[in-house]
Amino acid sequence: MMPAHFGGDIFDTSYQARQKATTLAVTFETDRAELERYIPEELELRAPEVQVALNQLTEINWLGGGKYNLVLVSVPARFNGKKGPVDAAYPLVIWENRTAPILTGREQTGVPKIFADIEDLHIYRPHYATSVSYEGNTFLSMQFEAGGPITGKDLERAKLQLRPLDLIGWRYIPKVGAPGADLSQFIHFPQWMEVEMAYTGKGTLQWTELSVMQNPRQHHIIRALASLTVKKIVQSVLAEGEVILDTTQARVLE
Amino acid sequence: MMPAHFGGDIFDTSYQARQKATTLAVTFETDRAELERYIPEELELRAPEVQVALNQLTEINWLGGGKYNLVLVSVPARFNGKKGPVDAAYPLVIWENRTAPILTGREQTGVPKIFADIEDLHIYRPHYATSVSYEGNTFLSMQFEAGGPITGKDLERAKLQLRPLDLIGWRYIPKVGAPGADLSQFIHFPQWMEVEMAYTGKGTLQWTELSVMQNPRQHHIIRALASLTVKKIVQSVLAEGEVILDTTQARVLE
Amino acid sequence: MMPAHFGGDIFDTSYQARQKATTLAVTFETDRAELERYIPEELELRAPEVQVALNQLTEINWLGGGKYNLVLVSVPARFNGKKGPVDAAYPLVIWENRTAPILTGREQTGVPKIFADIEDLHIYRPHYATSVSYEGNTFLSMQFEAGGPITGKDLERAKLQLRPLDLIGWRYIPKVGAPGADLSQFIHFPQWMEVEMAYTGKGTLQWTELSVMQNPRQHHIIRALASLTVKKIVQSVLAEGEVILDTTQARVLE
Amino acid sequence: MMPAHFGGDIFDTSYQARQKATTLAVTFETDRAELERYIPEELELRAPEVQVALNQLTEINWLGGGKYNLVLVSVPARFNGKKGPVDAAYPLVIWENRTAPILTGREQTGVPKIFADIEDLHIYRPHYATSVSYEGNTFLSMQFEAGGPITGKDLERAKLQLRPLDLIGWRYIPKVGAPGADLSQFIHFPQWMEVEMAYTGKGTLQWTELSVMQNPRQHHIIRALASLTVKKIVQSVLAEGEVILDTTQARVLE
Repeated sequence: MMPAHFGGDIFDTSYQARQKATTLAVTFETDRAELERYIPEELELRAPEVQVALNQLTEINWLGGGKYNLVLVSVPARFNGKKGPVDAAYPLVIWENRTAPILTGREQTGVPKIFADIEDLHIYRPHYATSVSYEGNTFLSMQFEAGGPITGKDLERAKLQLRPLDLIGWRYIPKVGAPGADLSQFIHFPQWMEVEMAYTGKGTLQWTELSVMQNPRQHHIIRALASLTVKKIVQSVLAEGEVILDTTQARVLE
Repeated sequence: MMPAHFGGDIFDTSYQARQKATTLAVTFETDRAELERYIPEELELRAPEVQVALNQLTEINWLGGGKYNLVLVSVPARFNGKKGPVDAAYPLVIWENRTAPILTGREQTGVPKIFADIEDLHIYRPHYATSVSYEGNTFLSMQFEAGGPITGKDLERAKLQLRPLDLIGWRYIPKVGAPGADLSQFIHFPQWMEVEMAYTGKGTLQWTELSVMQNPRQHHIIRALASLTVKKIVQSVLAEGEVILDTTQARVLE
Repeated sequence: MMPAHFGGDIFDTSYQARQKATTLAVTFETDRAELERYIPEELELRAPEVQVALNQLTEINWLGGGKYNLVLVSVPARFNGKKGPVDAAYPLVIWENRTAPILTGREQTGVPKIFADIEDLHIYRPHYATSVSYEGNTFLSMQFEAGGPITGKDLERAKLQLRPLDLIGWRYIPKVGAPGADLSQFIHFPQWMEVEMAYTGKGTLQWTELSVMQNPRQHHIIRALASLTVKKIVQSVLAEGEVILDTTQARVLE
Repeated sequence: MMPAHFGGDIFDTSYQARQKATTLAVTFETDRAELERYIPEELELRAPEVQVALNQLTEINWLGGGKYNLVLVSVPARFNGKKGPVDAAYPLVIWENRTAPILTGREQTGVPKIFADIEDLHIYRPHYATSVSYEGNTFLSMQFEAGGPITGKDLERAKLQLRPLDLIGWRYIPKVGAPGADLSQFIHFPQWMEVEMAYTGKGTLQWTELSVMQNPRQHHIIRALASLTVKKIVQSVLAEGEVILDTTQARVLE
């Protein structure tokens, strides 16, 4: 990682990034044609669904026990490679409120992370809320009203369903002083959540478009997402557990 | 830039990034051997000097009129290429308090930018002060006591001396799931300051080393810089003016 | 000031609080009856007008050269006292993004200051913008498009018009463990601006109401202000200069 | 509470402020004469001990489910009133990272709250750390290395010992435009913690004095606390549970 002249991390295949996580995920069905405009041709959209997931991460081992929040906007995708298909979530964008994981995510695995302020969950049971903003301008509000905890066999099923968090990143590094790219690769990045508790509930998303002056580098992303038709909310879920990332297992898809 | 699927910026060679700048730069002489440990072999150290420069940038055209601060730690370097030598500052590290310019700087031109909180200058004339910290832990304090403004021919000379801000970046993009790099290039990135006012004065730097837990990703950089012998302060200067960057004129050094 | 056991400031009548200021003020005419609901009976409303003024303060002498921003919402008022009428602005609310001046303002002079995040002005000439938010939820956006600078005799007139910033505060300290007040006083607090530059232009205000959960202590204030009829914008002005406060000249109105 | 003209809270004696709390408290023995310099004559110091306690508060009912952190520096005190003695902690200072509870604490119950940035606990088990800073300048670092959880009868004893959090505040509201006070009262403010888990361990405190320019309104408080002799660490404990405050039960001590 830059700066490289101070020495780098040891490439240690036994190392896993671990953190406690609270996840609030709202999935909606949208129009396939609208959504496919943002899916690169190398990928296939498995379903016209978008998931917006707040992740509140704490006790992060590779950040010295620190914390950060992210909002992942992703779709179910497939990469049809030479060695067969790879299914994973394809992130349209990830907003994070800390720079260090943005840099590692972009440069190591092509995950399209950008910055936003993301409030820790406000919790007034059974009400949960967060807001995502850029330099004082709110562009996404998430609310959740929890129903009861999921238990028994339903919990076992939920643990299985919520476990996989594999991502496909598109690592794109531009040429210097010229149009085009020096690197343009699709990367499979394995990660998963060991869910301990989960709650169903009613989630809502409210987007607010921003002007160029309010958010000069991201306004087109927000507009694209805010414009997607919401046919119906497919699922809203709140889960707590542990998230594990294994950067050394990432690989370029071919 | 990632995410690439929402469309990118047009590569427009007539576009220049412009911003108002207040610069507080303190340059010290150090031990050559100590310093050369951090200079890659492709570069030659022109003088055993380190400049630590706060830049407070406002009215930034490519950020919609927004602002941010940076602290640039650099040395005078030479790249001896096939087409002759290129002289520029080689940044050991740049701390910035906003993520968007960190991403463009790293990915487009290999400038080793990382995040820190950087206070706007506190100004109680003739005293100026700023502090640089990471998650509540101060690691650099800069003070400056201004003498009088530089005027007349001295100002003309200062304008010439302070004008060049060209950087040599080392763009290093790691391999995926393996040690080593997919890209490792030296890049010349032209920029300059049109100085309007300048003041001599007495500058001081105070480093505080941090523990791994206080700053897990940067503690070794801070320790390296804090450990450099300060033989003498060579120059302390405060300047105001405009800084212009021309990313489209950046080129890979060979 | 609390804590009192560490010793207090000396009461020094020669001391004036001084700071550099950039002010963006938008004044609108509203309905008198609507507005009078928020004016205590001890005061008379001189005109059914509300001014919303961003103040960006820097080089603040009593804060060691630090800075902060405030948004003052005020009306022209009169206190008809035993010694004759006192005219000044009556602040309905002042949002500030730093706690220290909130405490002195409330406890020393009854100025109703509360906290919000207030962006430094984004300046993309001739466009100026700021946003005011609470824990990630925007509730006020201000924009300004500057016309030319005011010059000559118009500037002299503007300097006189913009100079007085006297406030009438209502210092209200509640009883302990019971309804009602231990102190309820009207206070005259002299301050003024020495204007150096001023620009006319076109200002706009956009309020966004927040839910109880988004802003539990202020939502009713925002709703009250957002609900005021805007009959017309009376004046929009941007000014730069110095603001001087003289707390020792404050006095209780009788 | 100011502003009073928008209407106030209903005085409801059935209302209790509730919040989840993680507390990290380090108590040290100091020199009695040194400490008594900061104890007003109306109070008696019960033991020459100072407790420094981080409180990380979440799911706060009166803040819509929001959160904030505080660092309470207090001593065991006694008020010998007409109706007999009242024992409680006397806070020398409380730093909080949110303004709303600072205002209610100061104005309603005389608790000497002032602002600082306070990091959420970094947790890399068994290591816990936080830093307290002002505008980028760290002045207090707390570390804790947890031993095992307290269990069985020891836990029952710890619950009893850690339960009382009653404070005695000194509400001091200055005169307007003159030296001296309009209000100067001692107030008893009942609160308590319902402890669920507790850990012994080894805690450390590291103070860093700041210059007037780095912290113009608090530097003397930090210097006073940093100068206190630490004879020995009496207790270090980490606890989790719920904290309940009952403002309506506060009363002026006579």
